[in-house]
Amino acid sequence: MSQTPDTTPAPDATPDATLAGYRASIDNIDAALIHLLAERFKCTKRVGELKATYSLPPADPNREAQQIARLRALAENAHLDPAFAEKFLAFIIQEVIRHHEAIART
Amino acid sequence: MSQTPDTTPAPDATPDATLAGYRASIDNIDAALIHLLAERFKCTKRVGELKATYSLPPADPNREAQQIARLRALAENAHLDPAFAEKFLAFIIQEVIRHHEAIART
Repeated sequence: MSQTPDTTPAPDATPDATLAGYRASIDNIDAALIHLLAERFKCTKRVGELKATYSLPPADPNREAQQIARLRALAENAHLDPAFAEKFLAFIIQEVIRHHEAIART
Repeated sequence: MSQTPDTTPAPDATPDATLAGYRASIDNIDAALIHLLAERFKCTKRVGELKATYSLPPADPNREAQQIARLRALAENAHLDPAFAEKFLAFIIQEVIRHHEAIART
């Protein structure tokens, strides 16, 4: 039997048991996020290599504007703060640029 | 028929078609990330409300240390930079604290 607490608190659950249940869900979601991010960076690595091979411009302001608009709309639908979604994309793109600079140096 | 390009580039694909395929994958992954983040903030909102109701301490350094160690290990397995995984968690927690402060003010 697994020792992992269930997510849904029982009606008579103590605050500690309820907290443990929420944290188990957060841990599951975080594992999924990490694996999706790993896959995303595999894609952007391929993009970086393609751009380097064909001397395509590293930045594409139109593409980035489309991504921001799309993520803000998705966030709104999912009841996530659109401003946070935009900050999140900027955070990821910052890391992608760091990777692309590393590819360019090799 | 969908106009969305396939992810795997055909052997004779032009660089533009290959790039469009990678970008379609990135967009799919971003949609999944946004929805998982929305779900994660639902969990941390419940945690914030629980902590407020039972006057539990808002920060828990032990829990945070466990999360960092776990996410670094998951990242390593997924070939994602563990330092990035740690930065990512810090970025998310910063937003969670902002939400909890907003709950505390209401």
